[in-house]
Amino acid sequence: MRLSELGEFGLLRELERRGLAHGIGDDAAVFGDGFVVTQDALAEGVHFRLETTSWRDLGYKAAAVNLSDLAAMGAEPAGLLVSLTVPDVRVEDVLDLYRGLTEPGFAVVGGDTTQAERVTVAVTAVGESARVPGRAGAKPGDFLVVTGPLGGSAAGLRALEQGLDGFDDLVERHRRPPYRLDAARRLAPTAHALLDLSDGIASDAERIAERSSCRLVIDVDAVPRAPRIEEVGDDPFWTLGEDYELLAALAPDDPVQEDFTVVGRCEAGEGVELRRDGELLELAGWDHFRV
Amino acid sequence: MRLSELGEFGLLRELERRGLAHGIGDDAAVFGDGFVVTQDALAEGVHFRLETTSWRDLGYKAAAVNLSDLAAMGAEPAGLLVSLTVPDVRVEDVLDLYRGLTEPGFAVVGGDTTQAERVTVAVTAVGESARVPGRAGAKPGDFLVVTGPLGGSAAGLRALEQGLDGFDDLVERHRRPPYRLDAARRLAPTAHALLDLSDGIASDAERIAERSSCRLVIDVDAVPRAPRIEEVGDDPFWTLGEDYELLAALAPDDPVQEDFTVVGRCEAGEGVELRRDGELLELAGWDHFRV
Repeated sequence: MRLSELGEFGLLRELERRGLAHGIGDDAAVFGDGFVVTQDALAEGVHFRLETTSWRDLGYKAAAVNLSDLAAMGAEPAGLLVSLTVPDVRVEDVLDLYRGLTEPGFAVVGGDTTQAERVTVAVTAVGESARVPGRAGAKPGDFLVVTGPLGGSAAGLRALEQGLDGFDDLVERHRRPPYRLDAARRLAPTAHALLDLSDGIASDAERIAERSSCRLVIDVDAVPRAPRIEEVGDDPFWTLGEDYELLAALAPDDPVQEDFTVVGRCEAGEGVELRRDGELLELAGWDHFRV
Repeated sequence: MRLSELGEFGLLRELERRGLAHGIGDDAAVFGDGFVVTQDALAEGVHFRLETTSWRDLGYKAAAVNLSDLAAMGAEPAGLLVSLTVPDVRVEDVLDLYRGLTEPGFAVVGGDTTQAERVTVAVTAVGESARVPGRAGAKPGDFLVVTGPLGGSAAGLRALEQGLDGFDDLVERHRRPPYRLDAARRLAPTAHALLDLSDGIASDAERIAERSSCRLVIDVDAVPRAPRIEEVGDDPFWTLGEDYELLAALAPDDPVQEDFTVVGRCEAGEGVELRRDGELLELAGWDHFRV
């Protein structure tokens, strides 16, 4: 069987079943007393093209997606390690990459650089968390909240690829995604479940549903959307990934929900329901291998 | 200026000078109370070829080189994170990769998998250390010791590439390098400096010399050599990398030196001297970009 037949999630399940890995689907691993380590790589030709991405933005994004994972773990960043593979480019390009990597304000304290045909930026972010909400604690009755608008990054990428003008805000969302450390500081102390939206809300909600053994019901009309995304493409926004907003499950009496947008609730059952005007919509998520 | 003109070490210096990174040349970064994190990536076409490397050996090596970094930091491994980029290969190949990754006995507790044209295995190893010897503490009068024979891995790679038969032991050194956790447990509590030999002893010794502000004098005749490496190539063994033995600087009265091979000593001064029969030999080291 090929990877594309099994899918990324199928592979994770197979690895866990055989005892070869555990927790790979999580945003980060936890060691000792709340020490959090996460790792994410951006690969040329897969996650970015050098024709449409500046070195500085590439560095910024590589840092941001990892800081977003720390946010999802309720962790304060302590530093970054960067493994870079890169062809024989200009030194100034690599310095720009590092300017982007350090722009959020967290130091690069380790890593290495190797010559290769293609650029890969593998970042490890390290942080400390007083409480890791995880994905397994959502309960029937919980409210679901998100920290910001969805769909902007994927629409920005499409505008970029199709050479469409006038979508600078969306392109910016794609090039320089947010990392919601501020929101995480408010959500993490009490959230029943917390993750960052990297694969689309439908697919990411499924992870909470599976780990928490409950059903997540999302009212798609309540979900904040980035402006004008329907002018760029007609994929439903809940299938669009890389927004890096947070999705949290909060107790119904948790006052923190007032600071964010409630998009649904948790019920007894399993799976994810997307509803619009009371009608059930079909599910779809992003899987790196499933075609 | 291009990276190849500046060299890998030159790039590191430039990054540190501008405050864009620090400690990148170290084996690992230290956080909080002895929490150690290291990251190393193996890239197809640079560090391995799938024609001459099995998936299982690739996984083993990716784990081993990172465990070696932990050993150099005097750390006990706590777990691995694995970011894999891979084309649409057989699921069984990826399972074999993970079998190799977990063969040393440390769990894979996080990471992700992404489809890409080329295979990259980026591993983050996490551990805890009661004492990190570092590279800056070597003093004039210290003895230098190594934990095993050098030159075998590079010779094995050459035998492999040239299709030479009869060098199985050397090829095995290349495919499945050691990680000297046992030796590190004895060396780390008292060593003045400790690192793992990945770029050749000449080049790696230079790092201790620079950080410790002293001169390292190595008697090349005293250095243990892997057997028959001169039958495969005539590069001087001190330029051959990827052996993953440890190099330590120990106080002259440190009894631990009796367990290892003394290969030189530390003197007042700077740089690295390689000596044979009292004669000074020229220096050469491996730099990923310098040509």
